[in-house]
Amino acid sequence: MAYRIGVIGGGQLARMMVPPAIHLGLDIRVLAETEGSSARLAATQVGDYHEVETVLAFARDVDAVTFDHEHVPQDVLRTLVDAGVAVHPSPEALAVAQDKIVMRRRLSELGLPVPDWAAVRDAEALGRFLAEHGGSAVVKTARGGYDGKGVRVVREADGADDWFADLADGEALLVEELVDFRRELAQSVARRPSGQIVAWPLVESVQSDGVCAEVIAPAPKSAGRLAEAAEAIARTVAERLGVTGVLAVELFETDDDRLLINELAMRPHNTGHWTIDGSTTSQFEQHLRAVLDLPLGDTRPHDAWSVMVNVLGGPEAGTLAERLPALMADHPSVKVHDYGKDPRPGRKVGHVTATGDDLDEATYRARAGAAFFEG
Amino acid sequence: MAYRIGVIGGGQLARMMVPPAIHLGLDIRVLAETEGSSARLAATQVGDYHEVETVLAFARDVDAVTFDHEHVPQDVLRTLVDAGVAVHPSPEALAVAQDKIVMRRRLSELGLPVPDWAAVRDAEALGRFLAEHGGSAVVKTARGGYDGKGVRVVREADGADDWFADLADGEALLVEELVDFRRELAQSVARRPSGQIVAWPLVESVQSDGVCAEVIAPAPKSAGRLAEAAEAIARTVAERLGVTGVLAVELFETDDDRLLINELAMRPHNTGHWTIDGSTTSQFEQHLRAVLDLPLGDTRPHDAWSVMVNVLGGPEAGTLAERLPALMADHPSVKVHDYGKDPRPGRKVGHVTATGDDLDEATYRARAGAAFFEG
Repeated sequence: MAYRIGVIGGGQLARMMVPPAIHLGLDIRVLAETEGSSARLAATQVGDYHEVETVLAFARDVDAVTFDHEHVPQDVLRTLVDAGVAVHPSPEALAVAQDKIVMRRRLSELGLPVPDWAAVRDAEALGRFLAEHGGSAVVKTARGGYDGKGVRVVREADGADDWFADLADGEALLVEELVDFRRELAQSVARRPSGQIVAWPLVESVQSDGVCAEVIAPAPKSAGRLAEAAEAIARTVAERLGVTGVLAVELFETDDDRLLINELAMRPHNTGHWTIDGSTTSQFEQHLRAVLDLPLGDTRPHDAWSVMVNVLGGPEAGTLAERLPALMADHPSVKVHDYGKDPRPGRKVGHVTATGDDLDEATYRARAGAAFFEG
Repeated sequence: MAYRIGVIGGGQLARMMVPPAIHLGLDIRVLAETEGSSARLAATQVGDYHEVETVLAFARDVDAVTFDHEHVPQDVLRTLVDAGVAVHPSPEALAVAQDKIVMRRRLSELGLPVPDWAAVRDAEALGRFLAEHGGSAVVKTARGGYDGKGVRVVREADGADDWFADLADGEALLVEELVDFRRELAQSVARRPSGQIVAWPLVESVQSDGVCAEVIAPAPKSAGRLAEAAEAIARTVAERLGVTGVLAVELFETDDDRLLINELAMRPHNTGHWTIDGSTTSQFEQHLRAVLDLPLGDTRPHDAWSVMVNVLGGPEAGTLAERLPALMADHPSVKVHDYGKDPRPGRKVGHVTATGDDLDEATYRARAGAAFFEG
């Protein structure tokens, strides 16, 4: 019988798990939040992932449960585990990804390089942190932030008063030093429950307004020490936190040549989308292999360079489909990924990837392709 | 709105159209013969493609109809066209692929290189052909043959009497010279209704018991004149027969250095499966682009060599899924394709592909991977 994999969440990450599931002969089932989700082709159930009974019913007939996102509540996750369901990544690992303060604490305990940080509950504590860090810092909500939401640079002690006012008992905000970084990097690895880990090349991620806009694989001028350091960090995180499936570690490369961990994602990640077209094994195939505890695939790139550019919904009416002919006509080598989502302004609705021997040329093609695709 | 594509037939070719449809954001719908078909994930209807009403209902809401196989009857195809459905390839083109005598006649009329042939209705005519061709020939049923079925080498005039006895009025058998060939090659191209054609590299196809066993891309020692000749033949066939979508032309390379057309397939073909993992644009993505009249994609190979090996069902019980862990553990770079079919002995149930800089090494990996996968 085919392996059966259940994915909670019907977004584009679940959607992009479907092609490798088809090729590997896996039976993939998605619990989607809504009808017409991005992963609708594999959606076998529509329901609320906050509801224990809904998730338990979904998980009953699969060999492993994994995720499109990290938002499933811990009590739901633990009920699944108690019912004997193989949940990957585990609730313990996901707890670290679900709360930025827990994440910073665990990484610090492991001796891994992170920005200076503190958990703060009021303006006074924030003011002390600012005073100790040159008068500016980044404040983040511990939970629920993504794509630049829930993140703010502050220079005054009262700069986060509105967020403090919303804190429940026992909650805090994360405050971090404003890192002087040269660029942002990301290191993805995959880990099986039985321990095997493989890594893709270190990549550079170019952000725009807090959202990943472009990824270059491998990160230029990263061979040797830098790539080794990044891989060592990601392997340590995966092993020590017991992460199963794909783990993406977002890193700052500082002006003084250090690597600091920015964020963790315990699932396929935007910085790994280039692997669909650029690597022998995509992050989506690898994630499925890993969470089913199947041996991991080769991560060799097809070409010297891969460049991925995100496509955001634009202000102009119309769908990506209408823009396909022009894109394809001008850029026959650019690989198109349409997430099947309503292209609301600013929403990630697709991405394109170009690969080749020349970075400038691949970058040009990927950017030009994405520009055709955006409204 | 997304482009909507309807595929008649739920076999592995329809199945392998689903991943590129997901990536391109196409709405793919399959009319499958049975529940649990290979393309079940995209099957929106189960029904008999011989029934006009069934097929018309399926085709009503799509932008184009295409096929997993060439068996849809002409009256059904023509009813679709009369109802305004875009059918690709067209009934006129498919008529040539559906009947080997029609195919030989059309190719001969076009001056394309084919083996000597005749349409024969009785042992006497067969005997005359044998006498003129050194006493041996290949007899083929005009319709319904595949994978070596409906093909027989004869050396006596009565060698096809059982098939003659089954002929209906007006029917004939195809008899062809037994070609002394060095090897079998295949040239795939894709053509849009508006005329654009692109070609993949010429490949070598290794047959076993009349079934494609292995494909090497590109065909060794084929650069230059041979590749140009094969591409010119396939382009001529596509243009002159008005083929839309992928066209695969199976060729003999004769001992005296000629190319002769053996078979035509007007759909993605076993000899093009390597393109999923080995080419910038797979034959399945290209077929979807072509039948929707979207600009065609780049066909550049990822590596110097791609080797595809078919996986047949074996005599031993068990499923491909049970064999995945051992295959993946020993061959992390081999790409696995499981068609989700019951692995009956001799049935094509999957394939594997290996790519790399060294042909011998890629061949070893692909064969070893396939051996793990077979029962």
